[in-house]
Amino acid sequence: MTDFKWSELDDRAVKMAKVLSADAVEKAGSGHPGSPISLAPIAYTLYQHFIKHDPNDPKWAGRDRFILSGGHASLTEYVQLFFSGYGLTLDDLKKFRTAGTRTPGHPEYGLTPGIEMTTGPLGQGLASAVGFAYGQRYQRGLLDPDAKAGTSPFDHKVWVICGEGDVEEGVSSEASSLAGNQELGNLTVIFDANHIQIEGDTKLAFGEDILKRYEAYGWYTDEFSFIQPDGTYKEDTEGLAKVLEKAEAVTDRPKFIKVDSLIAWPTPGKTNDPSSHGSKLGSEAVAGLKKVLGYDPDKSFEVDEEALAHAREVAQRGLEAHAEWDQKIDAWRKANPDKAALYDRISQGKLPEEFDKAIDDLVDTFEPGSKVATRKASGAVINAIAAVMPELWGGSADLGGSNNTNIKGAASFIPAKDATVQWPDANEYGRQLHFGVREFAMGAITNGILLGSDTRPFNGTFFQFSDYERPSVRLAALMKIPNLYIWTHDSVALGEDGPTHQPIEHLAAVRGIPQLEVVRPADEYETAEAYRYFFEKDNTLPAALILTRQGVPTLEETKAKARDGVRRGAYVLVDTEGEPDVLIMGTGSEVQHAVAAAKSLADEGIKARVISVPSMEWFEEQDEEYREEILPSAVKARVSVEAGIAMPWYKYLGSYGKPVSIESFGLQGDGDENMVDLGITAEHVEDAAKASIAAVEAAE
Amino acid sequence: MTDFKWSELDDRAVKMAKVLSADAVEKAGSGHPGSPISLAPIAYTLYQHFIKHDPNDPKWAGRDRFILSGGHASLTEYVQLFFSGYGLTLDDLKKFRTAGTRTPGHPEYGLTPGIEMTTGPLGQGLASAVGFAYGQRYQRGLLDPDAKAGTSPFDHKVWVICGEGDVEEGVSSEASSLAGNQELGNLTVIFDANHIQIEGDTKLAFGEDILKRYEAYGWYTDEFSFIQPDGTYKEDTEGLAKVLEKAEAVTDRPKFIKVDSLIAWPTPGKTNDPSSHGSKLGSEAVAGLKKVLGYDPDKSFEVDEEALAHAREVAQRGLEAHAEWDQKIDAWRKANPDKAALYDRISQGKLPEEFDKAIDDLVDTFEPGSKVATRKASGAVINAIAAVMPELWGGSADLGGSNNTNIKGAASFIPAKDATVQWPDANEYGRQLHFGVREFAMGAITNGILLGSDTRPFNGTFFQFSDYERPSVRLAALMKIPNLYIWTHDSVALGEDGPTHQPIEHLAAVRGIPQLEVVRPADEYETAEAYRYFFEKDNTLPAALILTRQGVPTLEETKAKARDGVRRGAYVLVDTEGEPDVLIMGTGSEVQHAVAAAKSLADEGIKARVISVPSMEWFEEQDEEYREEILPSAVKARVSVEAGIAMPWYKYLGSYGKPVSIESFGLQGDGDENMVDLGITAEHVEDAAKASIAAVEAAE
Repeated sequence: MTDFKWSELDDRAVKMAKVLSADAVEKAGSGHPGSPISLAPIAYTLYQHFIKHDPNDPKWAGRDRFILSGGHASLTEYVQLFFSGYGLTLDDLKKFRTAGTRTPGHPEYGLTPGIEMTTGPLGQGLASAVGFAYGQRYQRGLLDPDAKAGTSPFDHKVWVICGEGDVEEGVSSEASSLAGNQELGNLTVIFDANHIQIEGDTKLAFGEDILKRYEAYGWYTDEFSFIQPDGTYKEDTEGLAKVLEKAEAVTDRPKFIKVDSLIAWPTPGKTNDPSSHGSKLGSEAVAGLKKVLGYDPDKSFEVDEEALAHAREVAQRGLEAHAEWDQKIDAWRKANPDKAALYDRISQGKLPEEFDKAIDDLVDTFEPGSKVATRKASGAVINAIAAVMPELWGGSADLGGSNNTNIKGAASFIPAKDATVQWPDANEYGRQLHFGVREFAMGAITNGILLGSDTRPFNGTFFQFSDYERPSVRLAALMKIPNLYIWTHDSVALGEDGPTHQPIEHLAAVRGIPQLEVVRPADEYETAEAYRYFFEKDNTLPAALILTRQGVPTLEETKAKARDGVRRGAYVLVDTEGEPDVLIMGTGSEVQHAVAAAKSLADEGIKARVISVPSMEWFEEQDEEYREEILPSAVKARVSVEAGIAMPWYKYLGSYGKPVSIESFGLQGDGDENMVDLGITAEHVEDAAKASIAAVEAAE
Repeated sequence: MTDFKWSELDDRAVKMAKVLSADAVEKAGSGHPGSPISLAPIAYTLYQHFIKHDPNDPKWAGRDRFILSGGHASLTEYVQLFFSGYGLTLDDLKKFRTAGTRTPGHPEYGLTPGIEMTTGPLGQGLASAVGFAYGQRYQRGLLDPDAKAGTSPFDHKVWVICGEGDVEEGVSSEASSLAGNQELGNLTVIFDANHIQIEGDTKLAFGEDILKRYEAYGWYTDEFSFIQPDGTYKEDTEGLAKVLEKAEAVTDRPKFIKVDSLIAWPTPGKTNDPSSHGSKLGSEAVAGLKKVLGYDPDKSFEVDEEALAHAREVAQRGLEAHAEWDQKIDAWRKANPDKAALYDRISQGKLPEEFDKAIDDLVDTFEPGSKVATRKASGAVINAIAAVMPELWGGSADLGGSNNTNIKGAASFIPAKDATVQWPDANEYGRQLHFGVREFAMGAITNGILLGSDTRPFNGTFFQFSDYERPSVRLAALMKIPNLYIWTHDSVALGEDGPTHQPIEHLAAVRGIPQLEVVRPADEYETAEAYRYFFEKDNTLPAALILTRQGVPTLEETKAKARDGVRRGAYVLVDTEGEPDVLIMGTGSEVQHAVAAAKSLADEGIKARVISVPSMEWFEEQDEEYREEILPSAVKARVSVEAGIAMPWYKYLGSYGKPVSIESFGLQGDGDENMVDLGITAEHVEDAAKASIAAVEAAE
């Protein structure tokens, strides 16, 4: 973007952006006007001159991606989307922060054209933007690895505007360190240093030298200020553009540009005032702002049609850029028919034809009676499907070997110069990810990969540390993007690492997240089917696989029934003749105890049905008839067995059911002994079954 | 510590530390031997020459605090505790990582003398160490503010050893930024740069210039290497001591000292090898290590008695330091009788005599029929008790005004030079905390304050962002330290900030954490009583107060009953004559709907008992008789009403109960409308009550 020109119409457009932002918050009665007002010239400069986009086709694959990390400043984006011609209307701005609007308080992915990501929980926009850049690079590597830099249809840039809150949050530190390591030359972050957060002047809690910090991460840094040496304020967009152009010439590092501004400038009485951050300005200040900017203080939502028409010209430039790109990709398609087929498949979210067979072949190697950890089974599945799904890539937060998230023979996704003794095969298109000990960034980056590319990432850590990753998991669920979490070491059976590492409440905690599918397979067969269904199902919800560290028996029963059963969430693994006396529900490593208990109970003449429940969420999706078939309401004697808190089970246990669970923190010693000491045994399941039967009888 | 001397006996002690570490892991069969082996000279140097401690009195108030942030290297500490004479024995080392041991895989607070904090979840040790330094400074300010630096009995230092994983985790970035802002001159962090993490060479995922990053935070930095320019390795403790002494002379900034080492040095075949991080070395390597160090490869747990005796002399030095301190504090007591009384009270964990009256006086101002947000009530209680509890301090992650965590008239806890327009009153002893947008560090720092001082912190954020803070909350619960979380904006009723900010699963998620007490008061009266009981109860478990943004009616019923009821977790708010037809349980802002529904039902001749359930955890602590009295098992028609997922309620609902809950993500619009749209209304409670009664009848 070399021919930067700024006209009087641009000035007027920026003024309009400020006034519309103030009006929208005022009408809503609440919101965050300050940042949209002071960010207006920056956002306008980006949307008009730097971001490559086509407002007529918000999903154009060749577009640059823009993420507003501080989602509370959502009007910053909405106004530019209105200006650019995304179909967002003045009426949408008038409906800011109302029920059913396209302009909600925080930008929502999937709702509003041009919004690349849901933001609001601070730090995650910036962290996921790093993932957008990861995804772009990996996809380019899949489809057009040899093109010269900047010439491929799969080259695009990632732009971020963030604020102090974003860089205070640790997740952005984690991701920014990785971005530096990865030399993400297509990522540019504009840091809006307005020196104001909710509690006031940021020096209260933010005294660091932020540019030095980003230099330490290996980023290119620069700064620019709208505050002039003489204390006056000038929104010098031409000066800013020069700084950005200089940064754009740097392609071997991510770029962090600090822009000093005054929040809400030039609103009388509210400029540089923390109250403008998160409250409406009030009619007096809004009127004052309008006067300063040459607007009629008595009118609201006034549109400067000439300036709007000028701003809308960006759509024409977008059409041209898109047309140019179409030629580029046509040429690429002709030159690369196989890769074009791959591109078509992954961009449509389709699986390869060989997918089922890859899993079937693996399943054929399983041997009932053997003992295999489900994390190991998971690693085998990943490797089996990776062979037919080049779009599949992933890794761990420094636990690849333990999480079994390594893809055999895969190169690592790091610049070749950072190859190590342990990972000698490394290049910028590698498919093996390494996050270091940064679970939260791992979750945010894989979210960004999903949002910014057609590839399919997975990511792993110990189940305990899903707590560190959690806020990003919730955001994946909210956005309905199919992130895949490989959480291993799922119970006190992990042993000697002790209570700090042993999940107890974690199954309940992740099952609670709406739109997240939690799957805890019992053995190799269920693990394979969990993967199969995750990729085959027709929604895009994220899923978490909860896997054992310890070996668990590969069951004869799952061999026969997992293929149909797992995708239904719960299924009868061992049944009885006639109506059962008791239902025993279990998941994961505890299914074996349910099976053993049922056998012992049968010896005593008690008919126990064993139900494997790999996924409550998948079970809840089944129709009433199926659910009644599995859990007949007439059978009130019920037992659950799971090495975690019972909270999620009471729903199925009813008044007389008895959980076999762990309600306290874990233990120090050997994993198998911990399970016994905490009562997770077949004997306890038997006892619970008898107690539940007795409770039903007593009540009758 | 100026007279640093290093003898041949010190050398032998370090060798013994390495050998014992290797033996302990080998005997356990698993563990992390590499870091304890290479950290031995560093830890020994600290324990012998830099840390002021009294092994005969591990809880001596005048001691320095040491935190091993990378808890997996626990033998680093255990061996030094054994050497120093903390009562930890060779036998304890032999029982490393076994059930019931004092030397578990990760150090556990409260279990082993000399362990200041449970560590293992990476990053949190370093982050909480910042809190230890906060706590020291605030307590000094309370008790001995005018003493010259270094002369007060309340002056002590905080020492940390951390590794790459710790500085990769975002929580340490957050806390380190604050530590720089706070100019914590008594905090020294030794960063063990062994360049190895589980996945191998750290350059795979850690390419940053860490010293530059810490300089950017405002820290003093220095570095030292055991790797010599010629490639040889020398554990030059004298050189290291000089670097540390130089750092100790710096008292106006926290200090970050990078020490380059080779993991597991000098173990043959395992030095600088990632396998030494988290697996036993194997008998061959252990034998090799012993040979290199002059130990008999055929013997295990061999003690060099002479070197041990030499190391134990540190205990004598500790006694002398302690005796010196005793004189100092005696003199202080005589000069400051009032402050001495305060010190005695807070160090014994006692409340001031005026505590109850402070709450009573506030409660007297409440007016049934008025409408007050529980966050506002919470702010009033904080201010009421702050007036009589100088040990109470706290703040928010940049949401003080919204969380109502501001203490009126309090100075801010920041150096005076960082006073702002909004917070003009600031000094290093202030009681108002400001964390910036750093929820996780806030949780970790307040944990450190509790562990490192006798003061009582509270901390606040939006309930949604308890997810960011969560890993530190779990650690507080595991350590049983009475952190106090003020989580406001607790439901979709917060309105227009939308689904990213509206808690749905959060009540379930935090209730799941063992040893955490979750309290969701219904109104002003319940809020006041929640605080009263939190401080009065005789356990030290942490508690979370879940508070509304919106106004809720102050109830006539709670006025009469909250004082006795809240501390029992659940109590009958509105009862019926004779046995109720249905039990309606509710919490927080939904109790009003339960009350309204009961009235409407009464008009229809249905007898509904309303049970307010401010805390399930407190209710579960009651005896069986009380619980049966509140929730008679004969009454099977039951309803719960809470603006979150129903998961925690099924336990009480039984087979026929009906929850009124929210099972999906939140909405964009007005808060009150959101509640209605999502079905949280008195009408739905009525409907649910009738449906539950019908379900019971149908089954009978």
